[in-house]
Amino acid sequence: MTDAVPTELLADRLRRAGEAAAEQGTDVLFVTPGTDLRYLTGFTGASHERLTCLVVPAAGHRAPPALVVPALEAPGFADVPLEALGIELVTWTDGDDPHLLVSDLSGGPTSMAVDDDMPARHVLGLRDSFPEVPQSLAGPVLRTLRMRKDPAEIARLRAAGAAIDRVHARMGEWLQPGRTEAQVGADITAAIVAEGHAEAAFVIVGSGPNGASPHHDVSDRVIEPGDVVVIDIGGPLPDGYNSDCTRTYAVGGEPPAEVKETYAVLQEAQERAVAAVRPGVSAASVDRAARGPISEAGHGARFIHRTGHGIGLDVHEEPYIVDGNELVLEPGMAFSVEPGIYTPGSWGARIEDIVVVTTDGVERLNHNPRDLVVL
Amino acid sequence: MTDAVPTELLADRLRRAGEAAAEQGTDVLFVTPGTDLRYLTGFTGASHERLTCLVVPAAGHRAPPALVVPALEAPGFADVPLEALGIELVTWTDGDDPHLLVSDLSGGPTSMAVDDDMPARHVLGLRDSFPEVPQSLAGPVLRTLRMRKDPAEIARLRAAGAAIDRVHARMGEWLQPGRTEAQVGADITAAIVAEGHAEAAFVIVGSGPNGASPHHDVSDRVIEPGDVVVIDIGGPLPDGYNSDCTRTYAVGGEPPAEVKETYAVLQEAQERAVAAVRPGVSAASVDRAARGPISEAGHGARFIHRTGHGIGLDVHEEPYIVDGNELVLEPGMAFSVEPGIYTPGSWGARIEDIVVVTTDGVERLNHNPRDLVVL
Repeated sequence: MTDAVPTELLADRLRRAGEAAAEQGTDVLFVTPGTDLRYLTGFTGASHERLTCLVVPAAGHRAPPALVVPALEAPGFADVPLEALGIELVTWTDGDDPHLLVSDLSGGPTSMAVDDDMPARHVLGLRDSFPEVPQSLAGPVLRTLRMRKDPAEIARLRAAGAAIDRVHARMGEWLQPGRTEAQVGADITAAIVAEGHAEAAFVIVGSGPNGASPHHDVSDRVIEPGDVVVIDIGGPLPDGYNSDCTRTYAVGGEPPAEVKETYAVLQEAQERAVAAVRPGVSAASVDRAARGPISEAGHGARFIHRTGHGIGLDVHEEPYIVDGNELVLEPGMAFSVEPGIYTPGSWGARIEDIVVVTTDGVERLNHNPRDLVVL
Repeated sequence: MTDAVPTELLADRLRRAGEAAAEQGTDVLFVTPGTDLRYLTGFTGASHERLTCLVVPAAGHRAPPALVVPALEAPGFADVPLEALGIELVTWTDGDDPHLLVSDLSGGPTSMAVDDDMPARHVLGLRDSFPEVPQSLAGPVLRTLRMRKDPAEIARLRAAGAAIDRVHARMGEWLQPGRTEAQVGADITAAIVAEGHAEAAFVIVGSGPNGASPHHDVSDRVIEPGDVVVIDIGGPLPDGYNSDCTRTYAVGGEPPAEVKETYAVLQEAQERAVAAVRPGVSAASVDRAARGPISEAGHGARFIHRTGHGIGLDVHEEPYIVDGNELVLEPGMAFSVEPGIYTPGSWGARIEDIVVVTTDGVERLNHNPRDLVVL
């Protein structure tokens, strides 16, 4: 498998994006640099004050697809098969109004949808170039494509899962009493790259009380014997698909009974949530499955975040596994299952695997043991 | 000088932001993670699907300042002197509607301005939470502060300039015939960090024909004797202030007369543009000064971009040195002066220094020779 996405697949995505736009009553999608652009063209682009924008017409809308690019960045799109995709390349130079240019290329739409990640300067720039055309988000259109991964995408996520599993398997080399979280994090960062990632997108080393802050980063805290340590790490492979896996470690020997008991509840919650994943159930039902054992054990108030998030070209994307999300799961959807139990000021624990919905159940993409790892 | 911005300075910036908002008729500014948030609070934050938003009321507006943060990320703001700044911390949890929360905290504004970098998902989320309140960009408000650097900011930019000058001074160690652009780029990347930057934000090694693409990155092209190579590099120091400097090198001995003649025109253009910088002249006049000698020599069509961009916490920010920008330069404004001459398919050259407007003229922040460097 090469990193390049085959042209036929890109063409199919563009066609389906246009169909989904038409179904949702949007005449045209405006896609700026980021993962949506990578999904549709194979190329992420660079987002800054100069507008780059892919114009994706809805099926049946009169405008042809076009890619609007600053002239000095056009060479960067040389590898995008624009001609085969039927996309017209339109360049602009400093002093031009690129938002008006996009407007001129859009075939007089009666509605437009902007990329969820488009910076406000371009959102409002486009708004002012079509003052009478209502704006909505492109996310609800594009997520219908992006959250249903094809087999090649699942294979890429599987490779990402294997890569981060190799990093967790080596944790004992680095996670030792007397070292700071930052020192351990630096070693993990290097290992994430050494095991095949393009970069370490996030490295959380939450030791002792810092483990109770789910989005802790690293700090200069020295890891002590007896610490429980949450390690939540991942990043993209060179093909752009991300890993994300959390394991919790006990440093310096067996932890006290209270920690073991609470951890057992968490492990049961994660198992039950994964077991609840199959086609036809709602995202919210997986969240409930995770919350059940934790609430029954009296720790409900200590599980302070949603159960999971979709993953693919973004680390966080649809579907979100959260209370209230009645989205029905389908084969090919990939997301994290990551309940946690946090005791502010003292310790925290989280277990996270990426899973994929299969035709009749679920496949985990992370395979290291989920026990509290005693180092 | 430590990296931390003194609390009194942050308080002064918040006060002046409120005053500038009031002057421009905006009741409230919404600032999301990024350089604007760093400028106002000392902390960049993390931008993703969960909303983090600083609510900055205009002077005289009834709402107090507030920072809306996902509960699980609140610990990350522990170092922000919120109490001293009079900012209320308001957290939300998964399932809440953070845009409605921001709306509730905003004191019933009749106008709002959103951060230029705010992702569309939050721009439209806020729009829908105040459907009757017109939205504009916060950039025109905040740039009145950010583009006028104080002496401490100038000192930080001066340090960044010195750091990237040290990297350029070592170019002969790496830029040699037989090596690929990517190999040279990897060495430069490491040196940028070794010389004190937090990261290498961009490394352009444009050899031979690639030098004619101003936003070229690196490639697997092997550098050949006789190549002219454009090296445009920089990144932030740990304090967030950026370097950005371009020099052009001739590899493998003296270049042909035509290259030397064209380069002499470019060098004259860069000198004249820098000499044109002083308080009271327009940004456009500096652009014209750079364009003059190049057009006179018949190369006008080969200088395909603006003359420069402001620099500070962002690599590209106001003021832009571009035709049509009648902004009057003032002491403390910092920007690049970087004319280029490009011959598609053959070669290119660019010379870039960061300069600061002083009370009576200009100070350059890059000091390496601007001659074509023969290696």
